[in-house]
Amino acid sequence: MKTKELDTIAILGLGLLGGSLGLAVNRAFAHVKRVGYSHRAVTRKKALGAGAVDVICKDAAQAVRDAQLVVLASPIGTFEELMREIAGSLREDGIVTDVGSTKVLPVRWAREILGSKVQYLGSHPMAGSEQRGMDFARADLFENAQCILTPTAQTKQVTLEFMTDFWTSLGMRVCTRNPAEHDRVLARISHLPHVLASALVNCSDAEQILLCGKGFLDTTRIASGPPGMWRDILMANADHTASAIGRAIKELTRLQKALQKGDEKAIMKMLSDAQLKRNELVEKKIKRKEMPA
Amino acid sequence: MKTKELDTIAILGLGLLGGSLGLAVNRAFAHVKRVGYSHRAVTRKKALGAGAVDVICKDAAQAVRDAQLVVLASPIGTFEELMREIAGSLREDGIVTDVGSTKVLPVRWAREILGSKVQYLGSHPMAGSEQRGMDFARADLFENAQCILTPTAQTKQVTLEFMTDFWTSLGMRVCTRNPAEHDRVLARISHLPHVLASALVNCSDAEQILLCGKGFLDTTRIASGPPGMWRDILMANADHTASAIGRAIKELTRLQKALQKGDEKAIMKMLSDAQLKRNELVEKKIKRKEMPA
Repeated sequence: MKTKELDTIAILGLGLLGGSLGLAVNRAFAHVKRVGYSHRAVTRKKALGAGAVDVICKDAAQAVRDAQLVVLASPIGTFEELMREIAGSLREDGIVTDVGSTKVLPVRWAREILGSKVQYLGSHPMAGSEQRGMDFARADLFENAQCILTPTAQTKQVTLEFMTDFWTSLGMRVCTRNPAEHDRVLARISHLPHVLASALVNCSDAEQILLCGKGFLDTTRIASGPPGMWRDILMANADHTASAIGRAIKELTRLQKALQKGDEKAIMKMLSDAQLKRNELVEKKIKRKEMPA
Repeated sequence: MKTKELDTIAILGLGLLGGSLGLAVNRAFAHVKRVGYSHRAVTRKKALGAGAVDVICKDAAQAVRDAQLVVLASPIGTFEELMREIAGSLREDGIVTDVGSTKVLPVRWAREILGSKVQYLGSHPMAGSEQRGMDFARADLFENAQCILTPTAQTKQVTLEFMTDFWTSLGMRVCTRNPAEHDRVLARISHLPHVLASALVNCSDAEQILLCGKGFLDTTRIASGPPGMWRDILMANADHTASAIGRAIKELTRLQKALQKGDEKAIMKMLSDAQLKRNELVEKKIKRKEMPA
């Protein structure tokens, strides 16, 4: 299937990502019918009112019936149950994807629950914020952001091409990693930052942090993200995240020792390495338009 | 002395803070003569060109001669030498302050080098960014930001009132802490965040972090700050920073163990505590206009 042949998409879960997806699809594929599902009545009403979907269902199985593309956009902790609900109603030629932040478990669940009848390909559109819910949904959420697809040996080339075109049409930069490599990298660049931000907030009492400046606020921004969602993400990537935390502890211990010994050179090297690496990163991100100049 | 009696200020060091101070003083105290000092010819030229100072000197002792208020705005590593240079040229009724990020050492150096002839009172205007230098100086840098004054038993009430009025006139919220308490709190809310941000960048290779999203970029923003300046800050507050790092390691170890044991409740508690505490902080900061709503 080509993206121009897409006529019906089902979006299961209408939070920040699902809602924004509906709005973005409407802009990029105006002719596509968007069927939405949420288990909450208030969200169903909001999504329809905001024009994030054309049709709304309170039954996931019904929502996917005609869809060529089904997108799981609910919290990762709900995926297994949702897959069981829709497994019997999927189109045989359909593609199923998800927008979860870890990929090994969703891919495994899909193989076990959906079987080989449908093509499943994990997506990780790295967009979002510490905000959550349909209220913050916006059509441009995915623009100039990175999307990682996680094909396996079972993924058909045509499915990979379809999903690449799909996210590219929404303005994303698409790359691929196998599910395990995805989770290993994400532990470092996404799950560890969340853990460090939360730990940093927990290190000081409320009266102390009230004195903080912009640096502290930026460094801890993501700690305002929904804890339930993040608990599920960390649990779904527990091994890699635990090992990433171990790496961070090692780095911190080294600096702590350097401070205790007054080893100026070691401190300078650590700070210089970090500055250089981040400045190069920022330069590349600006060139790719993933951040403003 | 009252701030309305101020007629001459000397600003020693014309980087982001010193340059912005010159511009801000011009706006708040239009009649005050601003004498600047920098050891670099190019900075002296820039500061004069940008209108950050009225008069520029290449000799610190000469710069302070007529000043009722002297502000050390160079990197903390230069304070001792600078104090020795100016000690013999200060006005007897003058007030000396600094804008350094740690306070125990500057206060000690001032007592040893400047003696009791002048009133020394440490200031920590918590403004700035990862950018540095005169090029980024702006008149509104101090607006709606926090300034911590660090009086000691030797500080005269009139000096404390003068410095409070001075920073308040530039738009700052002023509070006081003794130097040791200042350094202890700052280790948690400023020096530890810098260490964590740098460690996070150093935890991943350049190819991996290129995949990162906005969360990683915000969490690591301050790691782009000048390493030499930060080395000096960390060294000047080594004990408190090392102990703050120890606290962070403890927090991280706890989460690592919870992940390894699959202890969902412990993970949820840590994330919820952090979210709640940060959201309350943000609410207060918005109310105080220290961050946009």
